[in-house]
Amino acid sequence: MQKIGFIGTGVMGSGIINNLLNANYNVDIYTRTKSKAEPLIAKGAKWFADPKDVAESADIIFTMVGFPQDVEDVYFKDNGIFSGLGKGKIIVDMTTSTPTLAKKIGEKAEKVGVETLDAPVSGGDVGAREGNLTIMVGGSKKAYQELQPIFKIIGKTNHYFGTYGAGQHAKMANQIMIAGTMTGLTEMFVYAKAAGLDLQSVLETVEGGGGDNWSLENYGPRILKGDFKPGFYSKHFLKDLRVALDESEKMHLNLPATAQAKKLYEKLVDEKDLGNDGTQALIKLW
Amino acid sequence: MQKIGFIGTGVMGSGIINNLLNANYNVDIYTRTKSKAEPLIAKGAKWFADPKDVAESADIIFTMVGFPQDVEDVYFKDNGIFSGLGKGKIIVDMTTSTPTLAKKIGEKAEKVGVETLDAPVSGGDVGAREGNLTIMVGGSKKAYQELQPIFKIIGKTNHYFGTYGAGQHAKMANQIMIAGTMTGLTEMFVYAKAAGLDLQSVLETVEGGGGDNWSLENYGPRILKGDFKPGFYSKHFLKDLRVALDESEKMHLNLPATAQAKKLYEKLVDEKDLGNDGTQALIKLW
Repeated sequence: MQKIGFIGTGVMGSGIINNLLNANYNVDIYTRTKSKAEPLIAKGAKWFADPKDVAESADIIFTMVGFPQDVEDVYFKDNGIFSGLGKGKIIVDMTTSTPTLAKKIGEKAEKVGVETLDAPVSGGDVGAREGNLTIMVGGSKKAYQELQPIFKIIGKTNHYFGTYGAGQHAKMANQIMIAGTMTGLTEMFVYAKAAGLDLQSVLETVEGGGGDNWSLENYGPRILKGDFKPGFYSKHFLKDLRVALDESEKMHLNLPATAQAKKLYEKLVDEKDLGNDGTQALIKLW
Repeated sequence: MQKIGFIGTGVMGSGIINNLLNANYNVDIYTRTKSKAEPLIAKGAKWFADPKDVAESADIIFTMVGFPQDVEDVYFKDNGIFSGLGKGKIIVDMTTSTPTLAKKIGEKAEKVGVETLDAPVSGGDVGAREGNLTIMVGGSKKAYQELQPIFKIIGKTNHYFGTYGAGQHAKMANQIMIAGTMTGLTEMFVYAKAAGLDLQSVLETVEGGGGDNWSLENYGPRILKGDFKPGFYSKHFLKDLRVALDESEKMHLNLPATAQAKKLYEKLVDEKDLGNDGTQALIKLW
């Protein structure tokens, strides 16, 4: 059985690692703060002091960290993954990051005989815990096929979209869709409240028709309860929208509704300092 | 059994009238072009030459026309509904129109002893045909209760939201939500296409996760087939967004994402002259 390395043991990473341990994989982990990984270590994961050590020990190395800069660090810095990689290994970045960085990692890895995948996911912390993630994959098709048994432990569906960065592009498409449901949901409630309507009835009515959507069903009730705990951090969603719009610019595309959503989340995260709230906190701007 | 009047026999009106005829109601109808109403007349509906005549003949008069100006005409013009109304009748405007006009109709009707409802719907032509509409009601609570048997023939759910115009406000909230799903869906495909992704795989992936929504499921496949026939006319959706934003302004609300959606539909309808396409034609802007 291949030995798995996993770098980044946040909410998402922990859920995934747990499922891999349950499936009897050996999992080598690295995380900046060892104490945070204690529950995983108690369950059998082996902790290492550097990404390099994980890369030396494991056959397949997954990364799932916060921002593209973290991905860059974990791969390219001294004692980073590339300093420990050897021929025949596979690296898989599950962070939602930039297609450009995915390409940079993939091309560098090719030179040392390492196969690379970018494989961001959707489905959130619940999906990670329950092994129900949707995985969007770009990079080496050979590695994609080889990793099917592992992807099936982690997620309910996976799609291969093409070369390095294609998984990231698919995730961006997903986030662009969600930018629409989140802004629509927020402004719907803002309007309904100002008009004096019963918000629970509005929620039920809109759910019953052509306005129905996942964000409405999942975040609508939380907004009405004043629950702004993160299912997904606003700061991470803003990062995603920035990546999507940077990439759009490179492709000479103008996406005005997504750009408007980014402006609103910038206000929430940068001006109001609410980046650690969930994305449903957008309504706090009103 | 009460005699029903129905003014406006378009796609929506025809579906509703058919269901009322099937439930053995007598239905008096008026439509500008008699020939268009022939299938309903053949089924037993009685055609009148003026809204006034329908208002004189029927106990409960429904209206479902295109734009607020049409509503205004059909109620207030010479030979309009008000010229034929008598004490004890009920009028119900199902057009998606302005809360302000709903209030004007309601207050004028009160003076002649007539109960009024504004009762716009969601669910489209299919919902009208199948009696599956969602009905959002404002106005006289007494009339709302009295009309339950009829609403249950027409729709699967109905909610009472408050005084004159509250039904229209609820419909506006619904349209604001849909503005988000339609712009998100459109920009998602635009981005994915530019990035070279397989659009069918994108559709399936996003449907499987937190981006899932009714517009994606229903209009996504049509967009991929190049089918821009109207489930719902772009010109009518633009009208709705204009009403929503006018009402927002009156309430001193700023809804930037909805305003952005309106700008895009203005471009589609006013500049590109594609108002008779369905709302999914928004993608033709790219």
